[in-house]
Amino acid sequence: MSVTQASIFTKRTIQSMKFQTVLLILATITSQVGYSQTNDSIFIRKLYSEALTKGECYQNLRYLCTQIGGRLSGSPQAEQAVTYTYNLMKNNGFDTVYLQQVMVPHWVRGEKETAWVTKGKEQKRMRVCALGNSVGTGPNGIEAPVVEVRNFDELAKLGRTYISGKIVFFNRPMNPEYIQTGRAYGEAGNQRGQGPIEAAKYGAIGVIVRSLTLANDTNPHTGMTNYVDSIPKIPACAISTVDADELSMLLKLKSAGSVTFYFRQTCQQYPDVLSYNVIGELKGTMNPEEIIVVGGHLDSWDNGQGAHDDGAGVVQSIEALRLLQKSGYKPKRTIRCVLFMNEENGVRGGIEYATLAKTQKHLAAIESDAGGFTPRGFGVSDTSACLALQQFVPLLKPYDIDYIKQGGGGTDIGPLRKHGCVLIGYIPDSQRYFDYHHTAIDTFDKINKRELELGAAAISSLAYIISEYGIK
Amino acid sequence: MSVTQASIFTKRTIQSMKFQTVLLILATITSQVGYSQTNDSIFIRKLYSEALTKGECYQNLRYLCTQIGGRLSGSPQAEQAVTYTYNLMKNNGFDTVYLQQVMVPHWVRGEKETAWVTKGKEQKRMRVCALGNSVGTGPNGIEAPVVEVRNFDELAKLGRTYISGKIVFFNRPMNPEYIQTGRAYGEAGNQRGQGPIEAAKYGAIGVIVRSLTLANDTNPHTGMTNYVDSIPKIPACAISTVDADELSMLLKLKSAGSVTFYFRQTCQQYPDVLSYNVIGELKGTMNPEEIIVVGGHLDSWDNGQGAHDDGAGVVQSIEALRLLQKSGYKPKRTIRCVLFMNEENGVRGGIEYATLAKTQKHLAAIESDAGGFTPRGFGVSDTSACLALQQFVPLLKPYDIDYIKQGGGGTDIGPLRKHGCVLIGYIPDSQRYFDYHHTAIDTFDKINKRELELGAAAISSLAYIISEYGIK
Repeated sequence: MSVTQASIFTKRTIQSMKFQTVLLILATITSQVGYSQTNDSIFIRKLYSEALTKGECYQNLRYLCTQIGGRLSGSPQAEQAVTYTYNLMKNNGFDTVYLQQVMVPHWVRGEKETAWVTKGKEQKRMRVCALGNSVGTGPNGIEAPVVEVRNFDELAKLGRTYISGKIVFFNRPMNPEYIQTGRAYGEAGNQRGQGPIEAAKYGAIGVIVRSLTLANDTNPHTGMTNYVDSIPKIPACAISTVDADELSMLLKLKSAGSVTFYFRQTCQQYPDVLSYNVIGELKGTMNPEEIIVVGGHLDSWDNGQGAHDDGAGVVQSIEALRLLQKSGYKPKRTIRCVLFMNEENGVRGGIEYATLAKTQKHLAAIESDAGGFTPRGFGVSDTSACLALQQFVPLLKPYDIDYIKQGGGGTDIGPLRKHGCVLIGYIPDSQRYFDYHHTAIDTFDKINKRELELGAAAISSLAYIISEYGIK
Repeated sequence: MSVTQASIFTKRTIQSMKFQTVLLILATITSQVGYSQTNDSIFIRKLYSEALTKGECYQNLRYLCTQIGGRLSGSPQAEQAVTYTYNLMKNNGFDTVYLQQVMVPHWVRGEKETAWVTKGKEQKRMRVCALGNSVGTGPNGIEAPVVEVRNFDELAKLGRTYISGKIVFFNRPMNPEYIQTGRAYGEAGNQRGQGPIEAAKYGAIGVIVRSLTLANDTNPHTGMTNYVDSIPKIPACAISTVDADELSMLLKLKSAGSVTFYFRQTCQQYPDVLSYNVIGELKGTMNPEEIIVVGGHLDSWDNGQGAHDDGAGVVQSIEALRLLQKSGYKPKRTIRCVLFMNEENGVRGGIEYATLAKTQKHLAAIESDAGGFTPRGFGVSDTSACLALQQFVPLLKPYDIDYIKQGGGGTDIGPLRKHGCVLIGYIPDSQRYFDYHHTAIDTFDKINKRELELGAAAISSLAYIISEYGIK
């Protein structure tokens, strides 16, 4: 792009903006838009200016990622993150900053996992990591022939006789044809979440799951798996997509020698430990009893730094309140920042927090847990709330927030729904999220400063709008 | 993000999509939308599926970046890029693949630039690179006191007596408050483009320009500067933003010793050389005489690999045609891929190509020259054309193309406008573009495969729409 071109672009953009302003004024005159276009526009511009010129979320995330690092529930790092963010809120002068107690699972990965595949005389290392919540293999690891399947139907067809004593390899890729990567993740996810249960039903002794990513890479992607007490708990690991493809190829080769897979992991579940949600707010001045939550989750997987998942959401939530405060806003309703503990392997923080909604009126909750990427829009859980909020889209369009659409929420805020709270998911661009998700490369350097800041300002703006106008 | 959450998201998205489909059908019935919603939707879905599952643009870009590399006009790499892309079009079986001759400037950077700042007894290395088109400093470099200014007005106020014999340091940062980074680039750009002319008017002997980026980094960002024959041509370099801030700080310190700046660059302008635009097309079957161009520029700066600028546009333009071809499309109008030579330092390819428009009817030209980032929309040069194309936005919304808006084009296609051609700029997300632009880190690894592919499919879809319906 040349400067001349950029200048032309600029002029056209300004012309176009003027045109849009005229349209907006016309719209305001001709329809009954229930808000003050001018004042709200000016205030939202202030929020963005503060975020982009004096923003603090990027430096906060740097500390959270590089000085504390991965912070799985129950770990010393999780506790450090609690203290760090509590102090951030205190130092910002938020109201009623406190820690809400919550008992969390305490799963520990243990030694670095090892794995290899053997075919005839050939042996090759495979890049794996234990799935969260998995049992270990015992100190000597396990080795067995491999059965590759794509789904639970294939597993059922093969049956107990074939599966028993083997390691089941779930190798259904995420569908690259979907535009929203979250949709592909959702559809592939039962392999990881339910794979060990389903495989153990047929007597499998272990499970390998293709990493849930659209990238062709060598990083194993961890994530939560589940057991039920009635079925044997068998160890489960994730394998990188590159290695999954290689393993699959080896299984298809007709040449001499059967394929066996060895893996060893020493992960272990310990008794629950005490941890905390971190909470602070800007108290409402007119309707303080009506609460708007903005939040993300403080815990992260242990293998990376939890930068996109969900350090970004944590620092954006704090920043959303700080921007409002620095811009001199006295909120009508209470705007509360909630940093949830234990989203990754239990959602205990979200469940515990929701108990407050029995006695406190929660109007809306906005969660940022889809990465620190460039903002696209918001998703709203309810049709009527969505329609009510859509009238404010013109206020956000100048900031490249293109839509408020139906469908959305967040894992941590989910339990609030039954108390009548409107759930809102912040939607950043989704293309790169699963490149980093749950891996060793979900690190601070993968965050773009401006993309992170624009997200914080977008969330702050929506909290402001709801504080001013409610949802109606 | 958890799998459960992603599944909820999925269900809601599907519900929402169904709702949107109903709305679209209603819209089709109640208004006079002049296109076939169903057939066009199905065909565009084919384009995206091909791009996302069997796309070739990412591997083509890998070759262009890592096997050929930076390809400034007149360089051996530029010629290799001509041959490579010509063969790609030939091998794809495009119609009328040929090279259009164009004489291009031949500027060569020479030895790696060196620079340091001296204040009293202290000396520190500074990271600089020559601006494109700059003269050299001579083999011994130049050293002089530094005058920092923000703009040409400040320069004028200081005047010849103060400036003469010194090195002028243009240090106006790009404005981080703008949401579109291209706007900030446009506004800061005259320092680089016209700085040496303006400084030389007052007797300066050299120019340092703050790199045009919003990042706080150590990479000098090169780019074109200009001279006029009536004013002495003085050497000009770009300095990294980190070093610009340090230099500025040193200049403000009151402590002992004046600040002098030394730099040495051996860059040189050689006589023009013969090069080529690379052209191939899918011939129209009903109105072959009406041409729709899709293009990007083949040349890049020499210091990096020209991945985002504009390798992305090159491979997306080829891919746009390939997707149409593989999807079995027989275009009504001619869809032509044009890879322009010499956008960076002369636009000779764009100017030469436009001569064809005297005799060939150019309906529209789409340029991709804003990076290989996730698609946001398109910008259109003319109001009526923009309104005509906006009726097709519902076809593109499912692919996260949120708008077609007024204002846009591209440097290479600019000269076509006077021949009545509608100019269309492909608009990807702009946040990260100037992190890499014109630097050593504009390399293949900065490209996300899906973001690149989605862009190619978006361009292909718009070319399809215009081929089917014209612009009316």
